Amino acid sequence: MKACGLIVEYNPFHNGHAYHIQESKKTSGANCMIAVMSGNFLQRGEPAIIDKFYRTRAALSAGIDIVLELPYAYAVQSSDLFAKGSVHTLNEVGVSSICFGSESGDESHFIEGYQLYTIREKVFKKILKEQLAKGTSFPEASRIAYQEIGLAASEMDLTRPNNILGFSYVKAILNNNLPIDPLTIKRTKSNYHDQSFSGSIASATSIRKELLAEGTINPDLADTMPAETVSQLKSYKQRSGVWHAWELYFPILKYRVKTMSANELAAIHGVDEGLENRIKKTADEANSFTDWVGRIKTKRYTWTRLQRMFVHILTNTKKTDLEAAKNNPSVSFVRLLGMTETGQSYLSSQKKKMNVPLISNLNKSTSPMLYMEERATNAYYSVLENDMQKTFHDRELEPPVIFNT
Amino acid sequence: MKACGLIVEYNPFHNGHAYHIQESKKTSGANCMIAVMSGNFLQRGEPAIIDKFYRTRAALSAGIDIVLELPYAYAVQSSDLFAKGSVHTLNEVGVSSICFGSESGDESHFIEGYQLYTIREKVFKKILKEQLAKGTSFPEASRIAYQEIGLAASEMDLTRPNNILGFSYVKAILNNNLPIDPLTIKRTKSNYHDQSFSGSIASATSIRKELLAEGTINPDLADTMPAETVSQLKSYKQRSGVWHAWELYFPILKYRVKTMSANELAAIHGVDEGLENRIKKTADEANSFTDWVGRIKTKRYTWTRLQRMFVHILTNTKKTDLEAAKNNPSVSFVRLLGMTETGQSYLSSQKKKMNVPLISNLNKSTSPMLYMEERATNAYYSVLENDMQKTFHDRELEPPVIFNT
Repeated sequence: MKACGLIVEYNPFHNGHAYHIQESKKTSGANCMIAVMSGNFLQRGEPAIIDKFYRTRAALSAGIDIVLELPYAYAVQSSDLFAKGSVHTLNEVGVSSICFGSESGDESHFIEGYQLYTIREKVFKKILKEQLAKGTSFPEASRIAYQEIGLAASEMDLTRPNNILGFSYVKAILNNNLPIDPLTIKRTKSNYHDQSFSGSIASATSIRKELLAEGTINPDLADTMPAETVSQLKSYKQRSGVWHAWELYFPILKYRVKTMSANELAAIHGVDEGLENRIKKTADEANSFTDWVGRIKTKRYTWTRLQRMFVHILTNTKKTDLEAAKNNPSVSFVRLLGMTETGQSYLSSQKKKMNVPLISNLNKSTSPMLYMEERATNAYYSVLENDMQKTFHDRELEPPVIFNT
Repeated sequence: MKACGLIVEYNPFHNGHAYHIQESKKTSGANCMIAVMSGNFLQRGEPAIIDKFYRTRAALSAGIDIVLELPYAYAVQSSDLFAKGSVHTLNEVGVSSICFGSESGDESHFIEGYQLYTIREKVFKKILKEQLAKGTSFPEASRIAYQEIGLAASEMDLTRPNNILGFSYVKAILNNNLPIDPLTIKRTKSNYHDQSFSGSIASATSIRKELLAEGTINPDLADTMPAETVSQLKSYKQRSGVWHAWELYFPILKYRVKTMSANELAAIHGVDEGLENRIKKTADEANSFTDWVGRIKTKRYTWTRLQRMFVHILTNTKKTDLEAAKNNPSVSFVRLLGMTETGQSYLSSQKKKMNVPLISNLNKSTSPMLYMEERATNAYYSVLENDMQKTFHDRELEPPVIFNT
């Protein structure tokens, strides 16, 4: 069986995702589609609206055969570490290609870009360093450095968000000589419209915004998502009582910060360069989570970076906790969230070839890597009613989601 | 001016307290009554129903001239450390006597008891150690050891709770040769009834129980407290929205424990002998704070000890934070919460003789001792609505309560 990997968050799974799965299947010629998905906290430093198990169900019903969880240590990180975890997770289960969306839409641009990058890497790093020293934010400094080494040309513009992420994947594949073909699909609205696609395509951002603002799913919104997603969104809220948004966590986050010393804060991953004092100084005045981030924000720190930092404070993730993820050549385990029958038979054939354990629940949380997963899960569900916390947490101890088509 | 010290919690201030102040004033012949009072968390490991400023007002209106705060490092502790902090705080402001309630009612019993104790201290400690090794709880082990050395005789029974606390005060005074007379007043219901006392006398425990269960003050309950207490209780709840009880803190306490490692838990003061594993193991099943303590409780650990431990978890108080309080010969500051005019003139005359700073607010939180006060305050108010947290916290930055009779 031939497998193609996708790197996703599915927050929530929408028509654009379904389209991407269809196209990736065609482009790759694979008969097993594997998604590595962020767990309960996402790359841009936010809780997922509904938990990973509910999002897994939505993905499996839309054509994914296997959903793997990107470990917390890689999920809530900037693009290079995010890409490292994702690509190595997919490599551990033997995908022959990884298909990502990009503004470019042509993998040869990325491969040529990579070649140019390796030649001019020293210059890139020098410019990046200079920019950061000037107080420029990391994304902006990278943008400038890419531009300087010629990676902002019309067809391979590394100032575009999806190109940046895609380029991180390509770097992770090619730097490690992994036997994986990078493939890409052009992400444009007009491109979506070429398809005979039921329902409308809306951006993930606009869907989330509307969902959280309305607190309910109106027919127009429902039209942007597969029926299974709508059903998972509804049933999660019915069961748990909430859709997760940062503001729910504001009271405990504030309590946590206000009972920590500046030194303890500075030990948390992402609390750098004296941010601990800014966080503490602004805690009293903040009226909401958004207000708090706004009070801390400067040119140097992007909103996303500050949100990630707050996720690490919430989950009590220390700088020392991240060392293994940064230094190990690959991921130290693969966590299976769910699969179809196709996925199941693919995994049976792959299992013995894997170099790291395939973990299907958190029952044996012995590795420090799994402690991080456990803490993230506990923090995520901490805003539910007490009995619901246990119910939802216990899902972590059960077998993966099995989806029969 | 001659000052007499009282050691109290005033949770809430009731008729029994008013009686004790009157009697202490008579017995001591003092014209300035000074109370050292636990702050927002109490010796038995509970949040105070209303905060220290509201309790201060009730105390000042009932005959206390100066209210000092027992620092957190001494307040939420077993009797010896509690007594050390209390007695030294009162000594720093130059009281000539300390008057405590006891079942015995005669200070000579305590002084004779102390003499016997110093002679037989080695035997006492040996028995205590043996009992603790057998898994007996500390209070029960002490009780047995006191009995063995003859300190459970009818008139000086150190198996009675108030005698135990009183004996700790006497030990702290006499061990340090402090120029303070220990005085005691007999605590019995019949004794109260001898007085022509308006209103009825109820135990603090029964008042608290009824207050928290009812959530309101019925006329019978109001009759057990001075009018000023009733007014402070009402106004605190009206302003803050709550009367503080452990159950309010259950969600954040649980969140906190579930995002800590066992090692981090073991670093918290009071988490000893592998309790960290018991706490973590029971966290998921617990339906409430009370249920949680019940699941952890064994013969070795009293309910009070476990509650204190949970206060230290809530306030993030580490074993290392307590070293100064344990090792320093005296307290490192005196915190003034409120005073009458009499108190004010007494303090002006005393100030220059004091060996430690007299602190009237938390504006200059520079010493590690004050960080602990700050954390305790933040944890205490963390269950209020966001804007109220700031309002109540900011009271810590303002001058003390001034009460004009």
